[in-house]
This record gives sequence, C-alpha cells and structure tokens, in this order.
Amino acid sequence: MGKRSYAVVGMGAVGGYYGARLAAAGHDVHFLARSDLDHVCREGLLVESPDGDIVLTDVSVHGSADDVPPIDFVLVAVKTTDTAGVLALTRQLAGTAAVVVAMQNGLGVEAVLSEAVPDNAVLGAMCFICSNKVGPGHVRHLDYGRVTVGAHTGGAAIEAVDVLVDDLTHAGIAAVALEDLHVGRWKKLVWNIPYNGLSVVLDAGTDELMADTHTRALVAALMDEVVAGAAACGHEIPDSFIAQMLDDTERMIPYATSMKLDFDGGRPLETDAIYGVPLVTARTAGYEMVRVQTLYDQLRFLNARRH
Amino acid sequence: MGKRSYAVVGMGAVGGYYGARLAAAGHDVHFLARSDLDHVCREGLLVESPDGDIVLTDVSVHGSADDVPPIDFVLVAVKTTDTAGVLALTRQLAGTAAVVVAMQNGLGVEAVLSEAVPDNAVLGAMCFICSNKVGPGHVRHLDYGRVTVGAHTGGAAIEAVDVLVDDLTHAGIAAVALEDLHVGRWKKLVWNIPYNGLSVVLDAGTDELMADTHTRALVAALMDEVVAGAAACGHEIPDSFIAQMLDDTERMIPYATSMKLDFDGGRPLETDAIYGVPLVTARTAGYEMVRVQTLYDQLRFLNARRH
Repeated sequence: MGKRSYAVVGMGAVGGYYGARLAAAGHDVHFLARSDLDHVCREGLLVESPDGDIVLTDVSVHGSADDVPPIDFVLVAVKTTDTAGVLALTRQLAGTAAVVVAMQNGLGVEAVLSEAVPDNAVLGAMCFICSNKVGPGHVRHLDYGRVTVGAHTGGAAIEAVDVLVDDLTHAGIAAVALEDLHVGRWKKLVWNIPYNGLSVVLDAGTDELMADTHTRALVAALMDEVVAGAAACGHEIPDSFIAQMLDDTERMIPYATSMKLDFDGGRPLETDAIYGVPLVTARTAGYEMVRVQTLYDQLRFLNARRH
Repeated sequence: MGKRSYAVVGMGAVGGYYGARLAAAGHDVHFLARSDLDHVCREGLLVESPDGDIVLTDVSVHGSADDVPPIDFVLVAVKTTDTAGVLALTRQLAGTAAVVVAMQNGLGVEAVLSEAVPDNAVLGAMCFICSNKVGPGHVRHLDYGRVTVGAHTGGAAIEAVDVLVDDLTHAGIAAVALEDLHVGRWKKLVWNIPYNGLSVVLDAGTDELMADTHTRALVAALMDEVVAGAAACGHEIPDSFIAQMLDDTERMIPYATSMKLDFDGGRPLETDAIYGVPLVTARTAGYEMVRVQTLYDQLRFLNARRH
C-alpha cells in the first residue's frame, strides 16, 4: 500500500474526522480551512472518538491551494450550501489528475463538482456518522462512521473507488465500494430526509423522535416515500434497509442532526440538496413524495423566517 | 319572533361571543361556567367587537343546571377535549325537550352529544370566527363571525335549524342553514386542519403562513387533501371554497388560532376531533390524507412532550 496525498476542503464534523483518520494512518493530508485556519495552525486538530482520540499537532492547513503540493484525492467536505464558494479552490487543488470526492449530503452534489472539474474523475462518498464540530479544530465523533463510495464518472473513477475504500479501511474506517452511486445517494436520503427535517421542525433529537409512537411512524412513512421515490427513478432499495436505519437510529446515542445544529447556529440549511433536488428528481420520474414535500415546505418557512 | 331561552355551556371565545349577542338581542341566556363563574357573577361579561362592544352586567351565570329554568336551546361551546366533562350537565340542561347544538370544531362531535341526549334534537354549528378569550368574562372578537347550522338528527332538528338561524340572524350574526351537516363539518375542517396545526408546529400566525410561498402552498395542498377526503366520504365541496378560505385568511387580521392559544397556554389540543376522527373517517372511505397525517403526527409529538 502506497501513501497518497489528500486535500480535505472543509474542517467540519466530516472533513475533520475523516481527514484526521487518514493523516493518522500515514497519508499526506492537507486541510483547506477558512475560519479554523489560524487556530489549527497554532493548536492543531483534535478529534475525540470512541474509537480512539486523534491529536494532530503539526497539521498541514492552508487558506488557499497555492502552497499545496500535487494531490491524489480532493475530499470536498463542506456543506452543500458552501459548495459554490469552494469550486475554484477545488479546481485548483485537483489540477488535471486528482480524483474529486463529494463527501457531502444530498442528491446531485457530484454533478455540481463535475461541472467544475469536467476532466477529473469524480466520486461520491456517503458518511453514516454521528459527529459534531464542537469548536475550532475540534471534532467530536459520537457513533458510527461507515462510508459508502461510488463513482459518478466512469473509467478512472471506478478504479479510484477501490483505492479510496482501501485507504479508508486501512485508516480504521468501515468503507464499502458501491456498484451504483445513485442507490447509495438515495439510501443516505432515507436517513437524512426524516431525521434532519423533523429534528428542526419539532426541535427534537433522534432519540425523542424514535421514542414517540407518532413521530416514529412518521419517520418510517417518510422513509417509505424516499424508497418509493428512488424506485420511481429506477433505483431499488430493499425494505430491509429501512428496518436497518430505524434500528441503527434506535440504538444510536441521542443525536442532534447536522441540520438541527445548523438551524440552531443560524447557518444555512441544506434544504436544496437534501429535499429540493430529490423532490424534483422523483417528480420528474412521476412520483410525488408528499410527506417529504410537507417537511420541505415547513423547513423553507422556518429558514426564511430566521433571515 | 318570540324570545327563547338558551343555555350556553362554556364561556370561551365562542360561547361568550354568541351567547352575549343572543342576550343582547333579548333572548333569555343562561351561561354555564366553571373557572369564570365568580368573576362573571361579580363583574359581568365583556365582549369587545368591531361590530360593537357588548357589556352584560347582570349575567345569568351558573355552576350547575339546578337553578336554570327550562331551556329551548343548549349551545355546547366547550373545547371537544372538555366534552366528556359536560355531558351530564348538558343532559340535565336539555331535559326532554331542548335542542342541543354542538358549537364546536371537528368531526363526529354531534354524535358524542347525541349519545348523551338520544331523544333530543341535535344540531351542529360551525363558527367561522376570529375571537379569543383574553381573560375571565372577557372575549375579544377580532374578525368574521359567520355561523353555518345543520341538523344531525332528523324531524324536529330540521325545523330547529331554521329557528336557530333566525335567532342568530336577528342578533346580528351572519347565519346560514345547511342542507347537509356533513358538508358543513368538512368545510370547517378545510380551514381548521391547515391553520390550527401549522400555527402550532411552526409557531406562526395565519398572516405569516400566508405570506410565505412555501407554507401558503402547503396550506393549499392540505386544503386539497381535506376536500378529497370529504369527496371520498361522499361530501362534495367545490374548489371555489378553497379559494374563498385562502382569500378570507389573507384578508384576515393576523390571528393566532385556538389550537395555538391552547398550546401556548398548556391546555389540551383538539387533535382528535380536528385530525384523528377525520383521518379515520377518510381512511375508512378509502382515502389517505397523507399531509394531514404528517401534521397530526407532529402535533401528537409536540402535545405528548409537553406533559
């Protein structure tokens, strides 16, 4: 196994965690940061984790791509609401050779990156993880952490999936290569759509949503709709996956979703990527996700009222 | 026009308002009160209204039916969550001859009363009114006030509809006799279901819900579902009714729904009458009101968490 060079765009709950694990495994990891830059330069990066804390004291962290050496993989780990702001940076980091990985939530996120780097291989990575950014250069990993990886483009991207999965696996992360990125994206939505939205609208943690008969039924009904939406688009998700997601969440530690933290923190919500694009995609395929639309309308109202 | 004797059970935003108007028109009105009893005995009843304030200083108000003379109409104007607690009182007030009127929200409310007074004529009255109880013996009428009245039982009830409509009309209230109470009940739900639930879940007034594109669309979609639910049960509501409700609400003064006031005041929510019964009724007729169910599940969660 050779060591590869990674650029990680975004030092949040996802980029900070996976970047730190790859660095701890000996890869050459370069973080691109904005608000955290000075702090991480001085103090390094701390990841608390039930799988073992990681303390990186000498972090390669940058505010621009200028000083970053040639890169094998660019992990784009910013919120989708910030993607537009990092496209130029991503293009510069990627050059002509790097593989670009959308380590983000939602649907259609690889297509946005691919337009910026049309000649590069583009992957999507779905992170089933409970982690929160609790301060500058400080990520708290709480539970889970599995990553599924699929190719958005063909050719080199398909080989790159296996390389990334290998690197993640050797860094102690449960990683799985997907045959079909679409199915992987929709599977992630099966979790994200009910829990992110309901946690904001009802001001509730995942534990509360699962403990109440009515919201538990509503979560399951929303999941059914997402699976039906995927099926309308030609992507089959077995019913057992819903059971697994419900079961995982029930056994999960009480968790505030990323959208809940964004809402409480006054940051933009990823409503387009997680709701808007899937709704339009399913509708175009002839299926109305009615409950999902209800939740989306409520989120848009709450989001608009904050501003 | 003779004068009739009315018993009004409940001195809230509805009973206080319509009872005061009937008393001001010269009818013999007896209020049945619990928490307001002493205050109204001492201070009387004040109704502020854009149609003219009403100050009743010498109010016939009672804590029980014992001292109430024979009654022509018993107006049951308590929240549906309090109906069970006033059934014995209603039966005593009604005796064998009085007409019992469910002046309440929701579906199935006449049937509950009718079981308690199986030999009496039972009506339903739907009040399209913006009014709030702002203190003991103090009701603030804000806007609208139209009442539609239909017969739940046959025979005498059908004649009683016209008598009640006449009395209301002469008391200055826009009142309409309905040929079909079911249609009237479902029409009232067209307003109650979206605005009551969304005002609680989104902590919003009717004006905010109408001003936002997404919640306005959601309100309209919920109304569509209620109309479809009614149609499944054999009750036709024209599409123009939805347009009228949207238009009325848009031109309405900013209004906190009764369910919002109940929620904020820590009182039980009328979720069964306004959501639970209509959902089961439509489902039994073969139609799933999916958005309504979503809202209901959210309300049940919020309601359960308060206790």
